[in-house]
Amino acid sequence: MALIVQKYGGTSVGSVERIEAVADRVKRWREQGNQVVVVVSAMSGETDRLVGLARQIQSRPEPRELDVLLSTGEQVTIALLSMALAARGCPARSYTGAQVHILTDSVHNKARIRDIDAARVGADLEAGRVVVIAGFQGVDEEGDITTLGRGGSDTSAVAIAAALKADECQIYTDVDGVYTTDPRVEPKARKLDRITFEEMLEMASLGSKVLQIRAVEFAGKYQVPLRVLSSFGEGEGTLITFEEDEVEDAKIAGIAFSRDEAKLTILGVPDRPGVAHEILGEIAAANIEVDMIIQNVAAEAATTDFTFTVQRGDYVRALEILQARAATLGARQVLGDEQIVKISLVGVGMRSHAGIASRMFETLAREGINIRMISTSEIKISVVVDERYLELGVRALHDAFGLDQDGTVSS
Amino acid sequence: MALIVQKYGGTSVGSVERIEAVADRVKRWREQGNQVVVVVSAMSGETDRLVGLARQIQSRPEPRELDVLLSTGEQVTIALLSMALAARGCPARSYTGAQVHILTDSVHNKARIRDIDAARVGADLEAGRVVVIAGFQGVDEEGDITTLGRGGSDTSAVAIAAALKADECQIYTDVDGVYTTDPRVEPKARKLDRITFEEMLEMASLGSKVLQIRAVEFAGKYQVPLRVLSSFGEGEGTLITFEEDEVEDAKIAGIAFSRDEAKLTILGVPDRPGVAHEILGEIAAANIEVDMIIQNVAAEAATTDFTFTVQRGDYVRALEILQARAATLGARQVLGDEQIVKISLVGVGMRSHAGIASRMFETLAREGINIRMISTSEIKISVVVDERYLELGVRALHDAFGLDQDGTVSS
Repeated sequence: MALIVQKYGGTSVGSVERIEAVADRVKRWREQGNQVVVVVSAMSGETDRLVGLARQIQSRPEPRELDVLLSTGEQVTIALLSMALAARGCPARSYTGAQVHILTDSVHNKARIRDIDAARVGADLEAGRVVVIAGFQGVDEEGDITTLGRGGSDTSAVAIAAALKADECQIYTDVDGVYTTDPRVEPKARKLDRITFEEMLEMASLGSKVLQIRAVEFAGKYQVPLRVLSSFGEGEGTLITFEEDEVEDAKIAGIAFSRDEAKLTILGVPDRPGVAHEILGEIAAANIEVDMIIQNVAAEAATTDFTFTVQRGDYVRALEILQARAATLGARQVLGDEQIVKISLVGVGMRSHAGIASRMFETLAREGINIRMISTSEIKISVVVDERYLELGVRALHDAFGLDQDGTVSS
Repeated sequence: MALIVQKYGGTSVGSVERIEAVADRVKRWREQGNQVVVVVSAMSGETDRLVGLARQIQSRPEPRELDVLLSTGEQVTIALLSMALAARGCPARSYTGAQVHILTDSVHNKARIRDIDAARVGADLEAGRVVVIAGFQGVDEEGDITTLGRGGSDTSAVAIAAALKADECQIYTDVDGVYTTDPRVEPKARKLDRITFEEMLEMASLGSKVLQIRAVEFAGKYQVPLRVLSSFGEGEGTLITFEEDEVEDAKIAGIAFSRDEAKLTILGVPDRPGVAHEILGEIAAANIEVDMIIQNVAAEAATTDFTFTVQRGDYVRALEILQARAATLGARQVLGDEQIVKISLVGVGMRSHAGIASRMFETLAREGINIRMISTSEIKISVVVDERYLELGVRALHDAFGLDQDGTVSS
């Protein structure tokens, strides 16, 4: 008997029929002798409908109240799924995030999970029930409802799996696994049977939408075995593994990219200690996540140029903050660009294989793609390029690194 | 400075525009120096939409899960109203039933309020905030979400007003007060400026839909001044008063009626002690509320006939229970009738004025209306008649007791 946590996203529970299909699947897993905890998102379209209502009233809805509003989306799903299970003779109980004490900080709309009280869930599992939990939501120490931000249901599922010491956390989506890159951009993209945790972390952080980054971080931190699979088919999906030796032949696991990028540059800042903190401190205080950061000696003596990227949704606010600070910092000019994307090569094999970066730059150069920023880590290389080169760049790299060939990982 | 609890029903918050109108009204009350707590229902249509979803999955939805589902309705409203208040510069905070610890028993879909922890609400009021609370819902000792059944938002409002020792509890509806009878049945019906608590209790229990019966009970028990008024106009509504002397001239305050009635009769039960309990015990155990009860000596010696009324929604189940018990009870036959209604005269003046009952029966006889059951209390007389006589009976009685004349209460 295994303890399985399954997470179903909005598309997988997007209609009564889809919810009933999920109930059938959960029932099969339980009948095979497993204990099952199900974490669900709001029915697809519901969150947008609720945000639409809120925006009719306030262009920037109160964060606390937006969480009260949005958390109803998953609450509807847990009730309907529990009914569908009961209708199949499969005893089930639903819980909101607050009811199972998914304790978070108080950053509304973007809260982070701190702790989960798994006692009540354990008692239900012992009693033979399926437990259905609302993803994406929690409760802070004041008892206020919080949400984790879009995609947060993945994080909920992994955190619950960690708290329950589950044998596997299965993330059901509308794709059948993790691909070498997005098949909509490169039709020759190939599904991976396995990917290492570190690679998955990079893929997620770099914009591969299959899994939410915090979910992967949680899975790594608590060593939760994670599997991505389709709620529409029966495949084995992609297992996110902690054993690197199984994939030792691989140089590159995949190509991630992100359209959700914007670039800000502050030119001619006097080059003194603490200037980076002065620039980014206020950005961080506004809860804007900064991704790539580059600092260069500027043309003008004793000054420096400073560039960083943020998500496009934060671009306008970041620009406002920077422009307001420019004078105090003694900066010459603030520039911004929303028409950029990031393309990244990811693979643990990079550690032992030289020449990957140069082959990447050569490939892009051959296609006439100008690189605007570069950033590297041990297992990934990211470049920022103009938005119009996204598809061309991804396809050229996919081909150059032979990712359509079944040689990087066993499959 | 007064502390006012205002309750707005589904129609009053039925659209974004209506919610904004409520916010305007709440803001005006607050600007006049009052502390305001607002209790709201789900947007009209929302509860039906949710029940519709549930019924697609289960013809009789799991009661526990139905409460989880339905409670999202008010949760949407509290969030949107709090945003609308914030947008008007009026600080507000929303709370679900669970968040303000509206503790109920565990009878899902029909729970009763046991206790309210008003501490958090008090702190917000002290801080100058409007508090917006989800009506109709609570939480049981296990932490499970409960609902009070349809119309329960009135009860929530009164219970909250009692817990906060509010100066007045205002129930905003789509009518401008309590009428002598339903104006849709008798166009000459007249709005009352005042009605006694006891009369209102009878009116509500007898099917006058303006206020929910439990709300009136609560108001009486905790001496909460209650006012019914329209959320669409500016009138003073109807005050439910505890002073009877102000209405001493009145004989009859109004005529209530209920279409939600069904009648069950068990014939030829052996007449022995405890038989009434044997018949009704199981009905009560099934959480079916019994209204009128009549027991008569039967034609056959040493047996008794037993008739009672229930709500139509409970009719089939009550009939099943009775038929299953008939043999054990030694009864001859079980009969049922769903085509009946109840018409009631209500007024504290009945206490000191004789002849009201006989005038009622005479009026109905003159119209050829056959009375099927009669039940009386100190301040009301109810008759059960065939459904087709409802309008005729109400109009004849309204006229016979001069209720269209402004003489019963000051107005």
